[in-house]
Amino acid sequence: MDYDRPLFFHVMEYAAAADRDVIGMVSGSPDWEPPVALRDGLADYVNADSEAFQYPPSEGLGELREEIAARRNVDVERVIVTNGAGEANYLAMAGALDRHEERTSASEEPTFVLTDPVYPYYPAKSDLLDANREFVAAEPDGTLDPAAVHEQATAAGDDLAAIVVNTPNNPTGAVYDRATMAELAAIAGERDAVLIADEVYDRYDYTGRFESALTLDVDDVVVTNAFSKSMAITGLRVGYAVLPEAMVGGARTRHMLVNVATSRPAQQAVLEALRETGPEYYQRNRERMSDRVATFTDALDAAGAEYTEPDGGFYVMARFEEFPGTLENVKRLVDEVGVAGMPGEAFGDAREEWIRFALVTPRVEEAADRLASFFA
Amino acid sequence: MDYDRPLFFHVMEYAAAADRDVIGMVSGSPDWEPPVALRDGLADYVNADSEAFQYPPSEGLGELREEIAARRNVDVERVIVTNGAGEANYLAMAGALDRHEERTSASEEPTFVLTDPVYPYYPAKSDLLDANREFVAAEPDGTLDPAAVHEQATAAGDDLAAIVVNTPNNPTGAVYDRATMAELAAIAGERDAVLIADEVYDRYDYTGRFESALTLDVDDVVVTNAFSKSMAITGLRVGYAVLPEAMVGGARTRHMLVNVATSRPAQQAVLEALRETGPEYYQRNRERMSDRVATFTDALDAAGAEYTEPDGGFYVMARFEEFPGTLENVKRLVDEVGVAGMPGEAFGDAREEWIRFALVTPRVEEAADRLASFFA
Repeated sequence: MDYDRPLFFHVMEYAAAADRDVIGMVSGSPDWEPPVALRDGLADYVNADSEAFQYPPSEGLGELREEIAARRNVDVERVIVTNGAGEANYLAMAGALDRHEERTSASEEPTFVLTDPVYPYYPAKSDLLDANREFVAAEPDGTLDPAAVHEQATAAGDDLAAIVVNTPNNPTGAVYDRATMAELAAIAGERDAVLIADEVYDRYDYTGRFESALTLDVDDVVVTNAFSKSMAITGLRVGYAVLPEAMVGGARTRHMLVNVATSRPAQQAVLEALRETGPEYYQRNRERMSDRVATFTDALDAAGAEYTEPDGGFYVMARFEEFPGTLENVKRLVDEVGVAGMPGEAFGDAREEWIRFALVTPRVEEAADRLASFFA
Repeated sequence: MDYDRPLFFHVMEYAAAADRDVIGMVSGSPDWEPPVALRDGLADYVNADSEAFQYPPSEGLGELREEIAARRNVDVERVIVTNGAGEANYLAMAGALDRHEERTSASEEPTFVLTDPVYPYYPAKSDLLDANREFVAAEPDGTLDPAAVHEQATAAGDDLAAIVVNTPNNPTGAVYDRATMAELAAIAGERDAVLIADEVYDRYDYTGRFESALTLDVDDVVVTNAFSKSMAITGLRVGYAVLPEAMVGGARTRHMLVNVATSRPAQQAVLEALRETGPEYYQRNRERMSDRVATFTDALDAAGAEYTEPDGGFYVMARFEEFPGTLENVKRLVDEVGVAGMPGEAFGDAREEWIRFALVTPRVEEAADRLASFFA
């Protein structure tokens, strides 16, 4: 396996090396403060007994798993604390393949059905796990048509191991409504496959329509999540998977054999932050993002760009007339406008003409003005 | 894949539930303090800018990788910071399989040659990676006879992907000398395979004979390590792999797709501890362990037990006359003596009559007295 450096890094480096001021809208790292209680939690850890510096339980600190289970209204045994949503998705996808192999020993090409545009880590994880992947193009407004997913799942037949979705969605900003999620779960169920729902942007729902797949009354749904975005701590690497009972054992084993456990000071800090942080913190961050979306899309209107108004998440995808979102054009925007976005091709074929902008910078308004002046 | 709860947890739970005072000698968690600078590093992190809470580079903080590279005298590009030695070994073994597949597409059964007794995570990782494993029995004194490894490597033929060793060794306490390591590397080289050396106990060498495999003048050696034992921080999960150039790309990709990155506060704290901690800290801990070994083996003499004097690491394996190290007898020791060890069967066939005692408790002397009285 070769080292495939994500396009992401390439653009960030190009922007950093530019001979001018560039507003970075490439990465999805929040630019705001973690909860106060998170820093307090770390500060408490500094003075903990030396025992607190030793192995936590492999599946996660008991109290943290209980806090998560209570909030998600699931049995605590179904919760594994992971090294961010990255590991949670890895465990979920690997577990879906193991489950698929156990149930349909005949399948030669276990398959994930993914969306297009797609969060690039999903197809990359499919490759790592030697699985096949098929894509379902999103609708023009970024939503997902269950009928299109059904068609792809039918084509995959007995090879279908899982449908993997991300809601609120990166990069489209779509929030799949409850009916869609229920249909996706039913489609997976028809083929005895799993629905994997990555809900890491659940705190950034601007419509109030988001509902976790855990509220569906079905088995065989895996929900992955993390505190990376909700608490502005992408670097702490604390996430979790909530798995169907039958998948918990395999995921625990894999988690233990790959990582032993998740870093303990980070878990402890998240535990304290979960307990002590009120809804105002999350609301403030959601409103800030929602304001930025309004500012940015106003400028896109002024620039005559096509875009989909995000219902959730950190990103806006836009298409400028006669300015396709190629890597070359993204570099032109860096050099001539001072705004760095991500080329649409990083996310698949369906939006290769588009550019994704991450609104996690305090300079969204300035970036919007620059783009509006350039394209107006 | 079923969840195979390590025997380890079973014994710990049994000991915890016992109706008496039990001295725990099961787990390898240090019972002493991390370096002062480690706590200071965490304390500094508490007050860092919010940016410091976001993604570090996937391969590890640049400054930490440089500190490691300087100490190991290797090119910094060869260093990946991992979620403990656990992930480092996973990356090394997975990478050895990828490398093997690229070079010998004909091989049906890629094979790891391991030792017996063995650190149980290695065969478990082999299973996770769908690889075959063959064992080489250690010599009666715990050392490894390169001729025996050569025989097993020859039997594996083109299937050999890697030889995996741990020095100083868990559980035997053997420290493989330089000549042995050079021979192991040559045996791997003959078959175009890799030598993986897990050196996590390198700071606990009581003989002065230990030398890192990185000092061998050969390619295709992977060294894995962590700060878990050297800094008494098994719960922080900071380790690293030093890989041959040709394996770095694949390992980075796997690391990124499985974990994205290693938890940042833990990395930052280790960085400061590496810089600020003098040799006295490591010496003090080594001497403490060495004293415990003397205390404990004196008691084993008094108990008439057979044992191998450890040259390094945290463990002593012992065999008591007419008291084989079965799980049942280990439980008897818990109940009747108040000492919890690990049954030899957890480490393979070669030492299934033995019991492993971890000397990471301040109550080693008391445990020794209890055992001596019971068996005398």
